[in-house]
Amino acid sequence: MRIGLDVMGGDFAPEAIIEGAVDVLPFFTEDDRLILIGDQAAINKKLAEMGTDPSHFEIVHASQVIEMGDTPSKAFAQKPDSSIAVGYKLLANKEIDGFCSAGNTGAMLVGASYTVNVIPGVLRPALAAMIPALDGKKSILLDAGLNPDCKVDVLVQYGVLGTIFAKNVLGVDNPTVKLLNIGSEESKGTPTVKAAYEMMKDNPSMNFGGNIEANELFVEGMAEVIVCDGFVGNIVLKETEAIYHLFKKKIANMNDPFFESLNFETVGGTPVIGVNANVVIGHGVSKRKATMNMIRQTCDVVRVNLAQKIKESI
Amino acid sequence: MRIGLDVMGGDFAPEAIIEGAVDVLPFFTEDDRLILIGDQAAINKKLAEMGTDPSHFEIVHASQVIEMGDTPSKAFAQKPDSSIAVGYKLLANKEIDGFCSAGNTGAMLVGASYTVNVIPGVLRPALAAMIPALDGKKSILLDAGLNPDCKVDVLVQYGVLGTIFAKNVLGVDNPTVKLLNIGSEESKGTPTVKAAYEMMKDNPSMNFGGNIEANELFVEGMAEVIVCDGFVGNIVLKETEAIYHLFKKKIANMNDPFFESLNFETVGGTPVIGVNANVVIGHGVSKRKATMNMIRQTCDVVRVNLAQKIKESI
Repeated sequence: MRIGLDVMGGDFAPEAIIEGAVDVLPFFTEDDRLILIGDQAAINKKLAEMGTDPSHFEIVHASQVIEMGDTPSKAFAQKPDSSIAVGYKLLANKEIDGFCSAGNTGAMLVGASYTVNVIPGVLRPALAAMIPALDGKKSILLDAGLNPDCKVDVLVQYGVLGTIFAKNVLGVDNPTVKLLNIGSEESKGTPTVKAAYEMMKDNPSMNFGGNIEANELFVEGMAEVIVCDGFVGNIVLKETEAIYHLFKKKIANMNDPFFESLNFETVGGTPVIGVNANVVIGHGVSKRKATMNMIRQTCDVVRVNLAQKIKESI
Repeated sequence: MRIGLDVMGGDFAPEAIIEGAVDVLPFFTEDDRLILIGDQAAINKKLAEMGTDPSHFEIVHASQVIEMGDTPSKAFAQKPDSSIAVGYKLLANKEIDGFCSAGNTGAMLVGASYTVNVIPGVLRPALAAMIPALDGKKSILLDAGLNPDCKVDVLVQYGVLGTIFAKNVLGVDNPTVKLLNIGSEESKGTPTVKAAYEMMKDNPSMNFGGNIEANELFVEGMAEVIVCDGFVGNIVLKETEAIYHLFKKKIANMNDPFFESLNFETVGGTPVIGVNANVVIGHGVSKRKATMNMIRQTCDVVRVNLAQKIKESI
């Protein structure tokens, strides 16, 4: 498989991103190829510093960069030779099988919508994040940050998209879908969340299990799919990051697999659900380890061909 | 001081609430008095079981109960003899100096608005929760759950209310106010949050420090005041509860003051900011220990006369 990596995206780009690219090479087979997309001179300089032979990669030059603070749609339109735009061109032309970036999340979404397109029937794509539980099971939480302000029908469809994801990627037969809310009762939440509850409870496309509160996260028997808007999802994910750092500060030498599963650097990235190609978005603060795992995550998504699975099931 | 306790509010009421009331007695001085509001027969039965002399308390009978799932305004209007309604009557008549309940949060807000009233100039009252940091400092997060869907001007005023709270209760001279958001850049977030940023950044009534992301929670140097809507605030608080349980499961015998500060049972309750009397709301799942600390928290709020301080400063 051929994986495209946005070398210019993220707070520690391009250095840390290139370091992660070098680290991932041992996990690649003969048939796999990593395509570095970004400033050619910077890439060559960094690889030379690291003593890495550039021929391990393909390098595709991109002369522009979409910054983290850029307005997504404007930046995508005005910077056609940015690493994100170039990556999407390769993806749309099927020159790569998957594309990942730790750069501007909004621009990554705009790029997906403009080039590979949203899958017909999908209202708004979502970021699907994994939430680990103490019993070893995992839940998918969506949206983890693409759509901060979701309309009711979008929230409802996240339940459907999450169901397809859980069936195909997690291999769960009849996944339970819950709505992240501020109480267990049907009457709780914002008008949007209340209306979503109404529409989800009798929806034949999902096995709706009611509300879940944030204190039920990480415990045994969480729902397989947890639905919320991208603002709330992002807050939940980033607070999880804070938890990880707390653990680390308090118990310096703790070596616990569950604890490690809270570390975003081990997860690496979150797949975009609902677009016509395999796209993974990493955390803006990704360094070497997170980048390596973001690339590996992209390989996993390409392997199960997530985009195709959603397309067939929606 | 005279503290009113809603004995019927919370998932484990009235038993656990009465247990907490008994536990708090050693912390009360001769001048303090706890008023138990609820079903007289149930109160007497429980006190008899515990072997506690009822004369340690005053008991005010209330024949009705507002359930956790009741619609707040409807329930408050239709149950004038509920423990929450009776408690607010006592508070409005100044027969008690503070009132606390682990019951229906919405009904507690409605009750405050209908009886003791919102302080003139306050758009919407808020729940102020404490978020501990590793450096021992505390931040106030508001709103922690009263207003799930906040308008822009309400968010902006939370910054002002939080500033008054931090000055008067935490004793911080020039508290920094930050907006909880999904990115550090001004362009991030929902339209509401973006507009709030615009209005807060040049506001002379607060020392605005920009956005804070959820991964910056619990770390050194957080802002003294963190502003978000009640939906997000409630998710943050309850995820903190989940963190505490994770710690407890993973490190059974850990005895760490910071770790314990994440336990809502140690905190007990969150004061309502912006109403004309001292009101504290506890967690619905409060048991004995949480109830005891909710009552102690109410004593603290009465001691600094928080309601009066807000009134003078707004």
